[in-house]
Amino acid sequence: MRGVSIIGIGSTPFGRLTEISIRELAVRACRAALADANVPRELAQAFYLGNYAADVLVGQNTLAPLIANALGLRRIPCTKIEGACASAGIALRHGYLLVATGVYDVVLVAGVEKMTSASTPEVTAALAAAADLETEVRAGLTFPGAFALVARRHMHDYGTTREQIALVSVKNHHNSVRNDVAQFKKEVSVAEVVGSRLVADPLRLYDCCPISDGAAAVVLCAADRAHEFTDRPVDIVGSGHALGAAAMCALDDLTSFGATRDAADEAFAQAGIERADVDVVELHDCFSIAEIVDSEDLGFFAKGQGGRAVAEGWTATGGRIPVNPSGGLLSKGHPVGATGLGQVYEVVRQLRGEHPNQVPDAQFGLAHNLGGTGAVATVHILRRRP
Amino acid sequence: MRGVSIIGIGSTPFGRLTEISIRELAVRACRAALADANVPRELAQAFYLGNYAADVLVGQNTLAPLIANALGLRRIPCTKIEGACASAGIALRHGYLLVATGVYDVVLVAGVEKMTSASTPEVTAALAAAADLETEVRAGLTFPGAFALVARRHMHDYGTTREQIALVSVKNHHNSVRNDVAQFKKEVSVAEVVGSRLVADPLRLYDCCPISDGAAAVVLCAADRAHEFTDRPVDIVGSGHALGAAAMCALDDLTSFGATRDAADEAFAQAGIERADVDVVELHDCFSIAEIVDSEDLGFFAKGQGGRAVAEGWTATGGRIPVNPSGGLLSKGHPVGATGLGQVYEVVRQLRGEHPNQVPDAQFGLAHNLGGTGAVATVHILRRRP
Repeated sequence: MRGVSIIGIGSTPFGRLTEISIRELAVRACRAALADANVPRELAQAFYLGNYAADVLVGQNTLAPLIANALGLRRIPCTKIEGACASAGIALRHGYLLVATGVYDVVLVAGVEKMTSASTPEVTAALAAAADLETEVRAGLTFPGAFALVARRHMHDYGTTREQIALVSVKNHHNSVRNDVAQFKKEVSVAEVVGSRLVADPLRLYDCCPISDGAAAVVLCAADRAHEFTDRPVDIVGSGHALGAAAMCALDDLTSFGATRDAADEAFAQAGIERADVDVVELHDCFSIAEIVDSEDLGFFAKGQGGRAVAEGWTATGGRIPVNPSGGLLSKGHPVGATGLGQVYEVVRQLRGEHPNQVPDAQFGLAHNLGGTGAVATVHILRRRP
Repeated sequence: MRGVSIIGIGSTPFGRLTEISIRELAVRACRAALADANVPRELAQAFYLGNYAADVLVGQNTLAPLIANALGLRRIPCTKIEGACASAGIALRHGYLLVATGVYDVVLVAGVEKMTSASTPEVTAALAAAADLETEVRAGLTFPGAFALVARRHMHDYGTTREQIALVSVKNHHNSVRNDVAQFKKEVSVAEVVGSRLVADPLRLYDCCPISDGAAAVVLCAADRAHEFTDRPVDIVGSGHALGAAAMCALDDLTSFGATRDAADEAFAQAGIERADVDVVELHDCFSIAEIVDSEDLGFFAKGQGGRAVAEGWTATGGRIPVNPSGGLLSKGHPVGATGLGQVYEVVRQLRGEHPNQVPDAQFGLAHNLGGTGAVATVHILRRRP
């Protein structure tokens, strides 16, 4: 397979964007990415879109051709992919594969979700549909409940403390204060996290990502043509996509998601680098405990050390391995179908040296997108062109 | 790109399958396809699933990993694709591309929809979400209304008669009487069609496809490895996937869908054959008028001649170019996310010489899947291994 570069990125702010339709959100991110890439829309040979539940949340399905038409695209194949919160990661994976294999030279990939126009119970129900209706949802398990089980088990098995878990949220809220596209720009303290409203014991409000609107997009190009459009391409050097158990009751271990481990192994093997070579990580912190679990599953810390890592400052922007300098899902926001590309947007800004929380001289970045309670994961490793 | 073969097919019956969950429908079709291919599930390297609206219709989203787990698949990338009524055609296209480019050798592709557990108004609303909410759905346009506009315009521009349109339904109901997987096994007369309940003038009940449950699946394999599993592979020799206008108001011509024309041109160019070389066609007759329009857009008849073609018997199973010997969406049924693979199931049975309405010595077959009112289309051309 040949090399693939990201030559343009675009994003709306994430947050409560009441006045902007889902179509317009996606169009804004796509136009920004095309402009950033210096690519006229006529050059895009395919369009991939990640979206989770627009039919339930805004009553509009079949978004790929709808958004493509609004962008002025013509005739090209347009594909919408749904994989719960990993929808955009899987969409990126397909754009990547089809450029890498030479089917297309230039592909536009976007993700979008509009959630704040629905009520919180409606959103909770829509999200629960990503879990197993027959075995779990009907029994009352929601995502906060599922990750509360993960947290309890991680505390039990590894002595992870309530304070360590809270520190993830403290770090990520701190990081997003300076992120122009973040939903929240407000510091929180450990006391505020553990004192916030109980959602699913032990998780409290500030342990949970918000309900968000937003869109993000990238333009992919064959690496050997990237110079035609930009002098700062970022290469995709590893792509992993793996299946995990679709229900909590089928997990071997409540504190680890096999899909993340397998997707990471695939991406690292392809990239030919070690975990220690990665300079910056955007990972799927849908809940504070998820960042701890993900950072272990990705191989950055030994099993059970994720809580200590955040407490020791290893994952701070100035730490050993900065995690979620964007603010992550917890504080940048989590418009479900856009999130995976929002992460890539952040990593590319890091590798270009233009991030509001810049990691100095970042060469390799990693984006990790998780769907369901580990039913699916994607991992992409990006490299600044040497 | 290398050759790709279909080495196994499976399908549930289409119809009202009240007692079978959506997961079980998909599992049954997949198991049948794997068994037909003599492929143990461990050999599948990726899984693609077409589904339109399970979240709205049955409250379950993120079906690809759910069904993969139920099948006993492990670790492999699983992807759900949504493209309205063309969801399964786009899923097939992706399995095809990723085998053709050498990413995978063996891929399982399925489509599924469960619709009859929702009420008819709920299904109508769910389907309408494939059209443009902002410009059309809120104004009251539903799919029967949209295709009624197409019918009126075709009658006006080309003199197509009410009887010619009805004859599509008569033919397809006749065909499905002998199809073991069809929803309806009952002949209808022209008088019964034009006397049936009015749905959207001039379309009546028997001009409209039914609401259906069902699933279909295929196993794809690199052509040069097909002999390891089967002695009757069917090759995919052309694949087209194109974007059209996402709203009726953006169509240049109400009587033609550009996405079908473009997808057909792409598939025929790749296959290197002429329209006259095709022996059997399964096309997207969601309404009787759609078969007339599709048969023209695919290039089998000159513009305006589709009505005459059915009246003259050219599209009957013994005619010049047999169209929908399965019974088509109109009478075989239309479980939306499964339909595109249901068509391929029928074409493969024809090319193997084992169809209940066999076209003698069929060598080339075509499957045409349309989404929305022409927002997206796929065309696949299949060939019996010479």
